[in-house]
Amino acid sequence: MRLRKRPGALDVLRERPDIVPQKPEQLRGQWAVNQPLHVELGTGKGRFLTMMAEKYPSIVFIGMEKMESVLSYAVERTGREDNVRFIHGDVADLQGYFANGEVNRIYLNFTDPWPKNRHEKRRLTYPGFLNLYKEILSPRGAIHLKTDNEDFFTYSVEQFSQTGYHLNNFTLDLHADEPEENVRTEYEQKFVERKQRIFRVEAYLPG
Amino acid sequence: MRLRKRPGALDVLRERPDIVPQKPEQLRGQWAVNQPLHVELGTGKGRFLTMMAEKYPSIVFIGMEKMESVLSYAVERTGREDNVRFIHGDVADLQGYFANGEVNRIYLNFTDPWPKNRHEKRRLTYPGFLNLYKEILSPRGAIHLKTDNEDFFTYSVEQFSQTGYHLNNFTLDLHADEPEENVRTEYEQKFVERKQRIFRVEAYLPG
Ligand SMILES: C[S@@+](CC[C@H](N)C(=O)[O-])C[C@H]1O[C@@H](n2cnc3c(N)ncnc32)[C@H](O)[C@@H]1O
Ligand SMILES: C[S@@+](CC[C@H](N)C(=O)[O-])C[C@H]1O[C@@H](n2cnc3c(N)ncnc32)[C@H](O)[C@@H]1O
Repeated sequence: MRLRKRPGALDVLRERPDIVPQKPEQLRGQWAVNQPLHVELGTGKGRFLTMMAEKYPSIVFIGMEKMESVLSYAVERTGREDNVRFIHGDVADLQGYFANGEVNRIYLNFTDPWPKNRHEKRRLTYPGFLNLYKEILSPRGAIHLKTDNEDFFTYSVEQFSQTGYHLNNFTLDLHADEPEENVRTEYEQKFVERKQRIFRVEAYLPG
Repeated sequence: MRLRKRPGALDVLRERPDIVPQKPEQLRGQWAVNQPLHVELGTGKGRFLTMMAEKYPSIVFIGMEKMESVLSYAVERTGREDNVRFIHGDVADLQGYFANGEVNRIYLNFTDPWPKNRHEKRRLTYPGFLNLYKEILSPRGAIHLKTDNEDFFTYSVEQFSQTGYHLNNFTLDLHADEPEENVRTEYEQKFVERKQRIFRVEAYLPG
C-alpha cells in the first residue's frame, strides 16, 4: 500500500493492547482454545478481517501487517468483536507467532505481486513462504488466495502445486458470479468497481 | 467435432496400414525403440501432430482418434514422415495400446469440454482418465493441455492437482505472447482468428 506515514499511528496501536498484543510471541500456541484459528497475512486496513469476524463469531481471526500506518486504520475499525487480533509484524517471522499446526486457514488477499524477477523472494507465495505455512497449518489446513494480478496468480498456482499443495475452488473470474459467502477486501472493492477480473484459488495440504 | 460421416473414410484408413496399424494392440510396448514417444488424444484432423512430427523428427508421435471421418483427413495430410502413426480407437482403451511407462508425453488439445455435470465422466481430464494416464506415462512424464474453454480448464487444473500431478508453465492467455515453439492445432487456429483466449498448462508426475 502506497501510503504516507500516518502521524500517531504507533500510538493508536499502543492504546489497544487488547487488540494488538504488545508481545504477540507470548501468545504462540494459545491464540484460540477449542476454536478454529484463521490468519490473514498483509491485512491492510482490515475490512475483510473485521467483517469475517462479525460473520463468524466462533472463529478467531488474526490479521498480520507490517506497516503501522495501515494497521492503525484496521484497529480503529475494530469494534467490540472479541475474536479479532492484530499482529504488528512481518510474515517472515510467522513461526515466532504461531506454533506448528496451530492455524486452520491462511488468507492471502491481494498481497503485493512484486513483478520483477529479482523480487521473487518477497512474494508471499515464494516457496520459502509456502514451506513456512506448511509448518503452522493444521492437517487439511488451507490457504485461500485472491488477487487481481494475473502473473502473480499463475506464479502462485505453480508454486502451490510444486511444493505439494493441492488446489480447489479455482476460479478465473470470482465476480462473474460472486459467491454469496464472499467478503470483499478493501482492494477487491476498488478492483470490482473498475471491472477488473479477480482470480481465486484454495490450496490445501492433502490428507 | 460436429462432422457428417465422410463416405469412404474407413477405406482411407485401410489403405494406409503403415500409418494406421490394423492391429495397434500388437504394437503395445514397441511403438518407439530408443526414441521418445508422444501421444495426442483426440487428434482430430491431425494438423498439430503432423507439424510436430516434421519439427521433431527424432520423436515418435501417435495420434489417437475415435472418429474415422475426422481421422481420414489426418491420414491424408500425412506425407513421408516415418515418425507419425494413428490409432483408430477410444481413449478409454489406452492401456490396451500402450504399456506401463511407455509414453513420455500426452497432448490434450481442445478436447471436448462436456459442460454438463452428468457428462463429467466423458471429459478426458476426469480422474478415471488421469489415473489411466499415470500408468502409461514414464517417470517425470507430462500431459500438455490447451483449451479455449474456461470451465473445462479450471476443472482440469483442479483434477490434475487433486490426483497428484504437479503443474507447470501455466498460462491464462497463450497468445498474448505466443511462444516461438507453439504449434497451433486446427481448433486453435480458428479460436485465435476469433481472438478467443487460449489456456494452457502442463501437468507432470513428480519425481
Ligand atoms: C496490497 S495490500 C492488500 C491489503 C488487504 N489484504 C486488501 O486486500 O485490501 C498488501 C498489504 O500486505 C502488507 N504486507 C506485505 N508484505 C508483508 C509482510 N512480509 N509482512 C506483513 N505484511 C506485509 C503490506 O504492508 C500491505 O498493507
Ligand atoms: C474438439 S476436437 C479437437 C481436435 C484437435 N485436437 C484440435 O485441437 O484441433 C476433439 C476430438 O477428440 C476426439 N475424441 C473425443 N473423445 C475421444 C475419445 N474418448 N477417444 C478418442 N477420441 C476422442 C473427437 O472425436 C474429436 O475429433
